[in-house]
Amino acid sequence: MQTLPSPKGTRDFYPPDMAFREHMFSSWHATCRRYGFEQYDAPLFEHLDLYTRKSGEEIEKQLYAFQDKAGRWLALRPELTPSLARMVAARGTSLRKPIRWYSIPRVFRYEKMPRGRLREFFQLNMDILGVEEVTADAELIAASVAMMTDLGFAFDDFSVLVSSRKLLEEYCRFCGFETAKLPAVYALLDRRHKVGEDAFDADLRALTGTQSVYERLRAVLTARSLDELAQVSDSLESLHELRELFELLDMYGIGDCIVLDIGIVRGLAYYTGIVYELFDRKRTLRSIAGGGRYDRLVESYGGPPTPAVGFAAGDVVLAELLREKRGEPPCPPRSTVYVVCLGDSHPAGAIALTRLLRGSGIAAEHSLRRLSVARQLKLANASGAPFVAFVGGEEEQQGTVRLKDMRSGEESVVRRDAVVTELNGRFPQ
Amino acid sequence: MQTLPSPKGTRDFYPPDMAFREHMFSSWHATCRRYGFEQYDAPLFEHLDLYTRKSGEEIEKQLYAFQDKAGRWLALRPELTPSLARMVAARGTSLRKPIRWYSIPRVFRYEKMPRGRLREFFQLNMDILGVEEVTADAELIAASVAMMTDLGFAFDDFSVLVSSRKLLEEYCRFCGFETAKLPAVYALLDRRHKVGEDAFDADLRALTGTQSVYERLRAVLTARSLDELAQVSDSLESLHELRELFELLDMYGIGDCIVLDIGIVRGLAYYTGIVYELFDRKRTLRSIAGGGRYDRLVESYGGPPTPAVGFAAGDVVLAELLREKRGEPPCPPRSTVYVVCLGDSHPAGAIALTRLLRGSGIAAEHSLRRLSVARQLKLANASGAPFVAFVGGEEEQQGTVRLKDMRSGEESVVRRDAVVTELNGRFPQ
Repeated sequence: MQTLPSPKGTRDFYPPDMAFREHMFSSWHATCRRYGFEQYDAPLFEHLDLYTRKSGEEIEKQLYAFQDKAGRWLALRPELTPSLARMVAARGTSLRKPIRWYSIPRVFRYEKMPRGRLREFFQLNMDILGVEEVTADAELIAASVAMMTDLGFAFDDFSVLVSSRKLLEEYCRFCGFETAKLPAVYALLDRRHKVGEDAFDADLRALTGTQSVYERLRAVLTARSLDELAQVSDSLESLHELRELFELLDMYGIGDCIVLDIGIVRGLAYYTGIVYELFDRKRTLRSIAGGGRYDRLVESYGGPPTPAVGFAAGDVVLAELLREKRGEPPCPPRSTVYVVCLGDSHPAGAIALTRLLRGSGIAAEHSLRRLSVARQLKLANASGAPFVAFVGGEEEQQGTVRLKDMRSGEESVVRRDAVVTELNGRFPQ
Repeated sequence: MQTLPSPKGTRDFYPPDMAFREHMFSSWHATCRRYGFEQYDAPLFEHLDLYTRKSGEEIEKQLYAFQDKAGRWLALRPELTPSLARMVAARGTSLRKPIRWYSIPRVFRYEKMPRGRLREFFQLNMDILGVEEVTADAELIAASVAMMTDLGFAFDDFSVLVSSRKLLEEYCRFCGFETAKLPAVYALLDRRHKVGEDAFDADLRALTGTQSVYERLRAVLTARSLDELAQVSDSLESLHELRELFELLDMYGIGDCIVLDIGIVRGLAYYTGIVYELFDRKRTLRSIAGGGRYDRLVESYGGPPTPAVGFAAGDVVLAELLREKRGEPPCPPRSTVYVVCLGDSHPAGAIALTRLLRGSGIAAEHSLRRLSVARQLKLANASGAPFVAFVGGEEEQQGTVRLKDMRSGEESVVRRDAVVTELNGRFPQ
């Protein structure tokens, strides 16, 4: 029989792959805890209409949807935010605000797979709910930057590109452009990279109609700084908000990796204010993370009005950048001590010592098969365990254990009742 | 709009629920690592035929199966063992043996939900591959017992009921019973609890036909010890194997919680040898864990012949027992320090101190909203943070921070550059 493949777009995590994934996840956990976030989780699938109502058309097309045996329409989660909003809505006003929650969900999107995309992947999600002030946007952007620096990236490895849906809306209105046609502007901005500046310009001209609207909106969409936007109008609320955001980000000490980029639109339909995306500085890959403000989502699921900000980072692009920057991390050995049996000590002698070590919190194993000393040593070597302990033979009768430090090659004979102390001294767990 | 429910048989994990889940999982991780197991994982869904071929009829009926947009038949994993066997088969002989792997998969079974069952739940899986000797069965049973004692259970809280498929088969043959009819014996044993001894006896009589076969098989199926089995026949290989297993389990020091129970059959189709289940001592709930030997599964997926043993424990029954025994564990506060702003220090002063603390690994937060000191203190109190740090006002000018220990109520004034040392001394992270 042929061996079977895993489904397209999914990954098998053999122990070295899993060690890499756990390395990234434990860094994520550490960042979130230091920033005062609590962990939560939701079901892996939800009722289909949780997504069809709010996530927007792009996500809808990518859903793994199916009926259960009772005919319910369900879908594997393509993102966690709708579940979060559902959970917050379900508890009404009883949850203490602000909510500061994080999660590391496994998510699913059925889509084409260019570099950096899979159909099954993981995300880090961080969200703050209950704060309408821009301080929450700043806190969350600071957390996303800390997520990067905790993983070992420097400020010149990545940028946070910041924009604002409210700003685009206000400036469009100010320029005399119908806000009903805003989705067309989003679409235009979204394909700007692909079509180039000339085609972008032609499309914008067609969309805006009159020369004066075209010129003013063009000045907005090509602005590279808040000062350039201020030249169009200095009195719009969203501009003041962005100014305040940039000041706050300076207080967090991360101003150097923040860039204004009006072109950042974010695919998800529920954003209402400031939005941002993290990219590697060379921008060779898809975005590392993205987020923004979604002040109406909880209410739309039947909850109380709840201002909210959040971001999600995917594991696939990040893993690629991490491998590029730092290479493969070492896979730690599964045991600290490999117990080798001399003479007739298998299995009783091996079990007794392994049991003693494990009982003291030391990771230990022995050959479950009765093998020659040479073959046991070969297995011990291959296991990468930093210590070998010999049981049986001469030492057994004297109540001692012979320890070999596999890194230095050094051997020592230790009283059996002192072996745990000896190992803890040499190799703190 | 009404709020939406989560799908039937799934759970929302609000932070206190998540803290409980993480408490259990970190205990599982610790047991596995001490026993020298490496973590792995597989995709959350597999090609449907991975399950329809091997898991057996019961599991098949419970599958969440669906077609993806390209028409592939997929299924959410109802258990992890088929994925494990697929992964091992895919690497052929290149994986170093013995394989000692563990995983904590999320799994899905569409079924009726008596107490202790959900449709989406978690498991701990531990497996050893590459060892045909009974030492591997013993090592794994010892690990499952350690999983229980690490969680705080005592030997009189649970039992490991042990049986053997090979033993049933050998004794049936010895008694003159057709081994082709073995599945009927399994089914009989499986419903023994429900139908009672009289009905069981009548069914057994009908199944066996002749009086002599009936009497001998009855002696096997009602045996309460290895000695009672030995009275039927003392020469069968599987009896010697079970004897050796019981001796090994004594060496591991866990003989006291092991019970021979011929009635343990295990639903899964792929078991070939010793099987066992863990139950709470009162046996009021479904099994806590179950496992056994499956020597032919890897080969059946196209891999090399690979002897294997494994067990899985579910989180639902265990959580119920844990809550019964130890109550709800405390949910740790999300921050160690809550920064309260005096005077005009919001937001700059708050951000500066929060940043200093987080930069030193201390979990910290401040009110993102500009609130009165009284309201900030109320939030600080509700957050459960063990310390409050006051910034701004008089202390700001003197370069100091006022710290309040929320447990003792004690206050102290600390130089700003000594605040991290002070906190680490009082509340090691």
